[in-house]
Amino acid sequence: MKNRVVYPGTFDPLTKGHIDIIKRAGKMFDEVIVAVAAGSHKEPVFSWDERVEMAKKVTKDFNFVKIDRFDGLLLDYLKKTKMRIVLRGLRAFSDFEYEFQIALVNKKLGGDNMESIFLMPAENYLYISSSSVKEIAFHGGDVSEFVHPYVAAKLKEKYR
Amino acid sequence: MKNRVVYPGTFDPLTKGHIDIIKRAGKMFDEVIVAVAAGSHKEPVFSWDERVEMAKKVTKDFNFVKIDRFDGLLLDYLKKTKMRIVLRGLRAFSDFEYEFQIALVNKKLGGDNMESIFLMPAENYLYISSSSVKEIAFHGGDVSEFVHPYVAAKLKEKYR
Amino acid sequence: MKNRVVYPGTFDPLTKGHIDIIKRAGKMFDEVIVAVAAGSHKEPVFSWDERVEMAKKVTKDFNFVKIDRFDGLLLDYLKKTKMRIVLRGLRAFSDFEYEFQIALVNKKLGGDNMESIFLMPAENYLYISSSSVKEIAFHGGDVSEFVHPYVAAKLKEKYR
Amino acid sequence: MKNRVVYPGTFDPLTKGHIDIIKRAGKMFDEVIVAVAAGSHKEPVFSWDERVEMAKKVTKDFNFVKIDRFDGLLLDYLKKTKMRIVLRGLRAFSDFEYEFQIALVNKKLGGDNMESIFLMPAENYLYISSSSVKEIAFHGGDVSEFVHPYVAAKLKEKYR
Amino acid sequence: MKNRVVYPGTFDPLTKGHIDIIKRAGKMFDEVIVAVAAGSHKEPVFSWDERVEMAKKVTKDFNFVKIDRFDGLLLDYLKKTKMRIVLRGLRAFSDFEYEFQIALVNKKLGGDNMESIFLMPAENYLYISSSSVKEIAFHGGDVSEFVHPYVAAKLKEKYR
Amino acid sequence: MKNRVVYPGTFDPLTKGHIDIIKRAGKMFDEVIVAVAAGSHKEPVFSWDERVEMAKKVTKDFNFVKIDRFDGLLLDYLKKTKMRIVLRGLRAFSDFEYEFQIALVNKKLGGDNMESIFLMPAENYLYISSSSVKEIAFHGGDVSEFVHPYVAAKLKEKYR
Repeated sequence: MKNRVVYPGTFDPLTKGHIDIIKRAGKMFDEVIVAVAAGSHKEPVFSWDERVEMAKKVTKDFNFVKIDRFDGLLLDYLKKTKMRIVLRGLRAFSDFEYEFQIALVNKKLGGDNMESIFLMPAENYLYISSSSVKEIAFHGGDVSEFVHPYVAAKLKEKYR
Repeated sequence: MKNRVVYPGTFDPLTKGHIDIIKRAGKMFDEVIVAVAAGSHKEPVFSWDERVEMAKKVTKDFNFVKIDRFDGLLLDYLKKTKMRIVLRGLRAFSDFEYEFQIALVNKKLGGDNMESIFLMPAENYLYISSSSVKEIAFHGGDVSEFVHPYVAAKLKEKYR
Repeated sequence: MKNRVVYPGTFDPLTKGHIDIIKRAGKMFDEVIVAVAAGSHKEPVFSWDERVEMAKKVTKDFNFVKIDRFDGLLLDYLKKTKMRIVLRGLRAFSDFEYEFQIALVNKKLGGDNMESIFLMPAENYLYISSSSVKEIAFHGGDVSEFVHPYVAAKLKEKYR
Repeated sequence: MKNRVVYPGTFDPLTKGHIDIIKRAGKMFDEVIVAVAAGSHKEPVFSWDERVEMAKKVTKDFNFVKIDRFDGLLLDYLKKTKMRIVLRGLRAFSDFEYEFQIALVNKKLGGDNMESIFLMPAENYLYISSSSVKEIAFHGGDVSEFVHPYVAAKLKEKYR
Repeated sequence: MKNRVVYPGTFDPLTKGHIDIIKRAGKMFDEVIVAVAAGSHKEPVFSWDERVEMAKKVTKDFNFVKIDRFDGLLLDYLKKTKMRIVLRGLRAFSDFEYEFQIALVNKKLGGDNMESIFLMPAENYLYISSSSVKEIAFHGGDVSEFVHPYVAAKLKEKYR
Repeated sequence: MKNRVVYPGTFDPLTKGHIDIIKRAGKMFDEVIVAVAAGSHKEPVFSWDERVEMAKKVTKDFNFVKIDRFDGLLLDYLKKTKMRIVLRGLRAFSDFEYEFQIALVNKKLGGDNMESIFLMPAENYLYISSSSVKEIAFHGGDVSEFVHPYVAAKLKEKYR
């Protein structure tokens, strides 16, 4: 059986920080499934299709990556796909607190059918987030340091 | 004079974590007044009446509990009802920071007419919040671990 | 050349905490430019003009202060005005995390053309924020402890 | 039965921050027992007797206070004295983390025979600790802002 | 090639929290090497041999575990043993901060020859640490909730 | 009058992170006085003379730097030298908490005769500390990434 890990998120949009985490996971697991969530309460800037599309474009050279999508609870998605290990990136303290809450709630709901593992991005991606990237793009700033050229172009288009 | 404490909040909805705090307070104080706030900037999912109703149903077996409601500043409510001790639950770090700010601002406004006391819920309620409960219910998940059956039914109805 | 510092923010509205930071900066720098941002995603309560107006009224006795405004990225504003040092107030931990992220993102974007310095307000302003002031005013509370009388009047008018 | 609370600590030495917490507790409980711990791994500067003596001198005007001492586990002391409610002061974040750990470990050990309540000192005592007071006294600084005159004299004597 | 992970630490002593982390890692990796550090500045309570011995006893039923020991820099140990993935447990915030520093310093020193992954223990082990266990044992308390019976016996012996 | 700032610390030893802060301060202030504290409770690894010597060697090319030394309270040193502005580096959260406490205690003691300003080092120095440098050197690791060659040599000599 293959050693697989799920990397769930809204990816609105996927940043170089996410790519860094994906690459690191690729050194430890045979397959990394990037699972793009439909998104719930807070309305994403990019549509579900756009976010899936961007994730595919940006990771097309990594043969260990598979892009998938899910709507609803992560736990239901795991059950349906028979996956068990969930990957999360840890950047700053606020991430930590938030991830801890999610992981604990999920453990309560899913018991031992789910395991969270955390990876840390490279130093230069520690403080990059999808929100700050959108903020910069909104003001017409240059985001090429933070995202793949394809995503940069999409952001430019969106905030024109 | 009776030894009374006010437990204010939006309770949108009241969770098992809140019930745990209420029970603990009941061992120290003669009366615990659960004061349901009308809610201000962020729109609650349940109406004021619904939240009061749920609080009543869920605590109906605790004879030391009284459910009340208030609109406006907590300090004005305290003055009007001649109460002075305010109970707050502390779960994770983010609570702590937020509660500290509120408590300090209230001290500035109300001086020695108000005193905040903090209780810690049982370990298994440390990471449960009204928001995470709503998030799970929104996605059709099972919230019976986190809320009273009556609240679980109301959530199901709300997010159908 | 004069020793100048920029103090950027939404100032929605300017509090006594901001004034405290401005005064402290005035003891170290020849000129403090309060740069009122147009504001982006989260809609401010006061209009851009109102916020600039309040900042002017409240600092009119400080001859080292200049009120300015900017729209877009802080870094573009700095480039245009040939300024380099940015002043930020640090109050509680949440500020720290947030300010750190902004400062790091800005360093990435602006390199050595920008330097952030942080000042700490007096103890009694440590937990005051524009948001808590608006919350209190919204509920008809007295905000004279936290803001200049002119701002208090504007808040009263706004939330009538 | 009286409404009693235990306030345990090393009190090496007792500061004005501790006194503030004791006074606040006095408004809610009939009796506040200040329980001076023998101290364990880290060697206190003042002897056990000295610390008990200082606590007595400094609180002699509060008729709701009783000074006691204990050696060993807090839980064993609680069992022996048939007390159940433990008071802790919360100042800064590091306190919070530490207190949380202690409270959780104690809950594990003592179950429902113990309840922790947390109080927040006045704003001007938020950042005072026994360690910083000793550091200042060690360097010959004036500690009268932070401790009772009797304690100030003892510190002077100790660090002469 | 086998999928291996190193779990380094002082393990002074190994707690049930550590065992929980080891078990979780065992579900993801073929081999978990528990690497007992000689210990550096702060003197451990148990000798290096005792700590290795305890680790062996406590994990003897897990066939995916190998106990090893190292002296000096973790990075040198990794280089010598040709291992690359390092496992760390994350419990509370203080862990997070500390682990982050270590991980970043190690990345600086070891570049891409080392990868840190973080796992979270079960809820009931979140606040257990080797230090708190020693503190309780020092005061004659019962540590059987927190450590394996073999370790409990060793602690009793040590602190008799 | 010249625009001067004091940068106090134990500097045991001075790292590249400190140098980064010194350089940044040099762009804002006419003179940066690096004030090497004698050190108090925790015994430094390098003697006072050695630490002063290292600071001199490492900053000898910066004409805006002056190396000084002080024993006792920082506030007394400021009074004696008629300086008022104190520079501190902020790296991680633990720094922040600690620096805040020091700054608040100093404000209490020194009133408006002292002002603290905080600077943030470059991203790649964010997680470097004198302690981690000593830890690495103690284990025979290479510290040339973190300290000036002169300091690296001194560390090698010390831990031989």
